[in-house]
Amino acid sequence: MQGFPPAADKVISFTPASNGFPRTRWSFSHIRELVPTASVWHGRGPVAALPRAERDIGGVPFTDADGTHRTFSDMLGLTYTDGILVMHKGRVIYEKYFGALDDHTPHIAMSVTKSFVGTLAAMLVADGKIDPAAPVTRYLPEMADTAYGDATVREVMDMTVGVKYSENYADPKAEIWDYSRAGGMMPREPGYAGPKTFYEFLGTLKKEGEHDQAFAYKTVNAEVLAWIVKRTSGQSLARLLSERVWQKMGAESDAYFMVDSVGSESGGGGLNTTLRDLARFGETVRNGGRFNGQQIIPAEVVADIRRGGDPAKFAKAGYATLPGWSYRSMWWVSNDDHGVFEARGIHGQRIYIDPKAELTIVRYASHPIAANGANDPVTHRAYRALALSLMK
Amino acid sequence: MQGFPPAADKVISFTPASNGFPRTRWSFSHIRELVPTASVWHGRGPVAALPRAERDIGGVPFTDADGTHRTFSDMLGLTYTDGILVMHKGRVIYEKYFGALDDHTPHIAMSVTKSFVGTLAAMLVADGKIDPAAPVTRYLPEMADTAYGDATVREVMDMTVGVKYSENYADPKAEIWDYSRAGGMMPREPGYAGPKTFYEFLGTLKKEGEHDQAFAYKTVNAEVLAWIVKRTSGQSLARLLSERVWQKMGAESDAYFMVDSVGSESGGGGLNTTLRDLARFGETVRNGGRFNGQQIIPAEVVADIRRGGDPAKFAKAGYATLPGWSYRSMWWVSNDDHGVFEARGIHGQRIYIDPKAELTIVRYASHPIAANGANDPVTHRAYRALALSLMK
Repeated sequence: MQGFPPAADKVISFTPASNGFPRTRWSFSHIRELVPTASVWHGRGPVAALPRAERDIGGVPFTDADGTHRTFSDMLGLTYTDGILVMHKGRVIYEKYFGALDDHTPHIAMSVTKSFVGTLAAMLVADGKIDPAAPVTRYLPEMADTAYGDATVREVMDMTVGVKYSENYADPKAEIWDYSRAGGMMPREPGYAGPKTFYEFLGTLKKEGEHDQAFAYKTVNAEVLAWIVKRTSGQSLARLLSERVWQKMGAESDAYFMVDSVGSESGGGGLNTTLRDLARFGETVRNGGRFNGQQIIPAEVVADIRRGGDPAKFAKAGYATLPGWSYRSMWWVSNDDHGVFEARGIHGQRIYIDPKAELTIVRYASHPIAANGANDPVTHRAYRALALSLMK
Repeated sequence: MQGFPPAADKVISFTPASNGFPRTRWSFSHIRELVPTASVWHGRGPVAALPRAERDIGGVPFTDADGTHRTFSDMLGLTYTDGILVMHKGRVIYEKYFGALDDHTPHIAMSVTKSFVGTLAAMLVADGKIDPAAPVTRYLPEMADTAYGDATVREVMDMTVGVKYSENYADPKAEIWDYSRAGGMMPREPGYAGPKTFYEFLGTLKKEGEHDQAFAYKTVNAEVLAWIVKRTSGQSLARLLSERVWQKMGAESDAYFMVDSVGSESGGGGLNTTLRDLARFGETVRNGGRFNGQQIIPAEVVADIRRGGDPAKFAKAGYATLPGWSYRSMWWVSNDDHGVFEARGIHGQRIYIDPKAELTIVRYASHPIAANGANDPVTHRAYRALALSLMK
């Protein structure tokens, strides 16, 4: 968006016509200029330096899922990368920005947000403030008459709740859009009479199928979990994340959440961070919760995430690009020989952690296709090739 | 706004019913949670420390305009102070927070914003990028058919433009509300068909009376000046303020502007800063533009502001509480024996600079009465008494 004023055909605003690619390359790095947001304060402490040992990994070769020979650099363009930062053995070895992103501007993390919420929830479990075996209604009696009326917190954390809610971005009638409108993440039509907050929307959710049978990726679980986190901690997500993580890890910048009309953060997709702070968080998790000279996340929280969920339940969801994976506390766990696990956003946002290779890759992107099947066949092979190259 | 969710009668949202006092005590410190905003990056450099030499000035006595004996502390409560920071000889001698403000959260500066815009404009004049004697249309040909078609930049900077625009907050039909709706600073009624951006609104302004005859405080002048600043610098206000001031003065926090639907900052009232960064800016100005080891604002810019505008033109505006004052480059200049000058916001926001006493007072407030006549009779006497007390 350039010019004062921007020309009519260059305006990017909070309307459906203006939300599509390629405008997302700008808007994903400027969310706060479009909607209300709440700050995640980075505090007053010194910034935790990210040591640098840069090397040119752009030429690292890999073979695509369809047999095409490519390089790490090719992957960046193919997957509409807005920024990538690679850390190896605790040092920044590669950092590049494209599109409208730079090293100090927050980008929307979308569903990477869920892994933050899952981690905060697991930290509250470690604190004894949340019992994962408890019914959701112990903390949210308001949810008694919904799909969550007979679900446990653990089922929410691992997304094995039977709830009628479609995450299919290609279907304009999918509930993901009702959810987005309720939370003010999408514009509403004139005369809109639906739910006006995340809370109201969550109260409308009906059961479909049984709980604890299969992994079913549904953003509303992250919102329910975020509500439990707020109710049990007595703090907003923004404040909790600031106090428990952002300030302690020596974040360089304030992060922020999109908020709905009653100031409630989107725990399903509303977090925006700089790439560097995303790297600090990824390194915190890779290091078993330890970073910036202190234990920020309890080691057992990270160990539990890394052990993963039930691969049999995960398999029922039918993710062709994620064979043998599972889902635990809102993290995606490969169960492979490197112990890779990920936080994943729908347009290619990622925290990719390879513990064996001592590798953390964080990436922001604005892939025009809202589906991770559009990223994984390229990115996973590039990341694996990089890991093997670094381990030589 | 407390609770998850907040109780219905505690919700503060972006609707007229929710905008009144006492909710402003919360909302003025949480603007970004209600509307879209653009960040003023504080940069990567070290924060400029504010040396401290605290003393209890709360008991400093003064006599109110109506003869009542009061103390400095009384003044704080009487004028709904959200935060005050007093610097004397470059040291913080007093810092207090009330209401919903703290030492790291930005508060809306409202018309104090104008003094930032006026200062940036004067800096561009010093750079040779703006000629104050030039017609507005040299920079904004779009304004040819408006009240500004035959006005000069200097008339805009000093608010002596003859333009039909009422700033009367007590009149629901005043143009200040049309301006606010156009810029998205006020909610719009369903079916709203008026201007949708600041730019569109400015294009509707008609001439009333003659230019250069009298000071007439009209917020639209600040918006026109902001537009000239953006057009001539080629930068958004947020970026320009970051690069020219915020980063250089060692600001502690990012500031932010409210933006309209095309991302244009409100230069008339949309800046939000922490009180401490407002103090850094106030000290920069008090020190002739020098702070944090460098000349941030050219000395001649500050000297020109301090000389003030034409008191005869100012007098025609009839401000009973400001006898002998004038207005220059969007600063209020007392022309008194201490050389006091101010940046002023409608709910009691202030930068008060007393050069002779080496005193800078910055204050954020949420006075329920949107009129400086409600503040000045108490605050000016308290500040003057404090200055004299410190000079003993």
